[in-house]
Amino acid sequence: MATQYTPAQLRHAIRTGEHTTNTSGLCQGFVQCNVAILPKAWADEFLQFCQLNQKPCPVVAMAAQPGDTNLVEVAPDFDIRTDVPKYRIWKGGTLVDEVTDISSVWRDDLVTFLLGCSFSFEEALIADGLEVRNITQGKNVPMYDTNIACRAAGRFHGNTVVSMRPFKPADAIRMIQICSRFPSVHGAPIHFGDPAAIGIKDINQPEYGDAVTIKAGEVPVFTACGVTPQAAIMAAKPEFCITHSPGHMVVTDIPNSKLAIL
Amino acid sequence: MATQYTPAQLRHAIRTGEHTTNTSGLCQGFVQCNVAILPKAWADEFLQFCQLNQKPCPVVAMAAQPGDTNLVEVAPDFDIRTDVPKYRIWKGGTLVDEVTDISSVWRDDLVTFLLGCSFSFEEALIADGLEVRNITQGKNVPMYDTNIACRAAGRFHGNTVVSMRPFKPADAIRMIQICSRFPSVHGAPIHFGDPAAIGIKDINQPEYGDAVTIKAGEVPVFTACGVTPQAAIMAAKPEFCITHSPGHMVVTDIPNSKLAIL
Repeated sequence: MATQYTPAQLRHAIRTGEHTTNTSGLCQGFVQCNVAILPKAWADEFLQFCQLNQKPCPVVAMAAQPGDTNLVEVAPDFDIRTDVPKYRIWKGGTLVDEVTDISSVWRDDLVTFLLGCSFSFEEALIADGLEVRNITQGKNVPMYDTNIACRAAGRFHGNTVVSMRPFKPADAIRMIQICSRFPSVHGAPIHFGDPAAIGIKDINQPEYGDAVTIKAGEVPVFTACGVTPQAAIMAAKPEFCITHSPGHMVVTDIPNSKLAIL
Repeated sequence: MATQYTPAQLRHAIRTGEHTTNTSGLCQGFVQCNVAILPKAWADEFLQFCQLNQKPCPVVAMAAQPGDTNLVEVAPDFDIRTDVPKYRIWKGGTLVDEVTDISSVWRDDLVTFLLGCSFSFEEALIADGLEVRNITQGKNVPMYDTNIACRAAGRFHGNTVVSMRPFKPADAIRMIQICSRFPSVHGAPIHFGDPAAIGIKDINQPEYGDAVTIKAGEVPVFTACGVTPQAAIMAAKPEFCITHSPGHMVVTDIPNSKLAIL
């Protein structure tokens, strides 16, 4: 898949089955989103959960009506049933299938949520000359369970999951400034320094993703992470739901700069 | 001195000799400034030094011409010769006098600089619910020499002096956001955490001001400090210069909120 493809071209390649792998590094400059698709009977509480926990669960777009397959914010021709490279289908909190098209399981009561993703702010950090360690090391960002409780909404509850990127303190200060401009992709970090202060057991053993090197003089900086709503959904065990497979995101027509508030 | 006095009323009390003590906590909501008055033969290089080192040396106002005693940015009736509660007079880098009026030593070649002061951002931090330790402990903020070199300009050079305020990491992140809005009062901090990383020998032995308590779970956050230009002036040893006495500031008619860029 040529990286110079436009988002529309990439979505077309995904829709036709030409592209089925992850979207990391593709269509740089455009917003990519996490996907959560829930039955209407669960969707209202999930939206409230996101509203109460905006740093880990920033809603970039949601379907106007249950059953809607297009979200105009993404693109005029977007179809949630075909335009994600890989989906995970869950029943009662258990993964039951991984597919490249959900047309055959689509239901009129399904509500689609697109949530912000760290790719957008990582691009802004790199553009500013900061090193993003997981990218330079070619790894998934390390993610950790914390003891920071989310505010519960109905059946949705859980602790905040954070991603971690190490920086020298002066670079961490700059990272905080840049990320503050992007509230819809997790915004400013929520902690830095001592991992134990937020209940992280072992910085070298992330619960999700890969460990990265923390060099002498660097501090770990922790940002609220989009795995938080996924974990809350798994814990709530809705009878049916669909998510993207990790790294296989919705690629939108929205320029990353549109998410910057300043 | 009643704290409800307006800046104009306080300056009048200073001018008439009624108020000769420090200005800390007075006229809340209005910008207070550090003072540096230099002969024209030194002023151009000093301005360049400030321009090259804006974080420690933010110029809020300067006299339009050598010899000018009014700075319209402060107030229409401001007079630098009488409106500072206490002045220090220096010759060749040596303190030779401390006075409450400089009319008798004024010269037509003197150029007045007013530099931003941390009072403005401390007020914004407190308004946001953060604790500023030096204020709650009733102390001068602790200030330290560092190994962070300023960019030299002519005869002016030296290392950056920093002030230190301890915060929990989450509060430090908020402090960074708030201070970023105030570039003309030192802006975002330049370091946090390990004091030795910026050449601070002993966090409990500040070179200027008083030590404050750093509680468990807090990190020291270091901000470029207005003592930096004073130290550079002392090192340059101009044949003549005048500064304010510590804590005895120019109180301006400028609302603190006017310094916020966002």
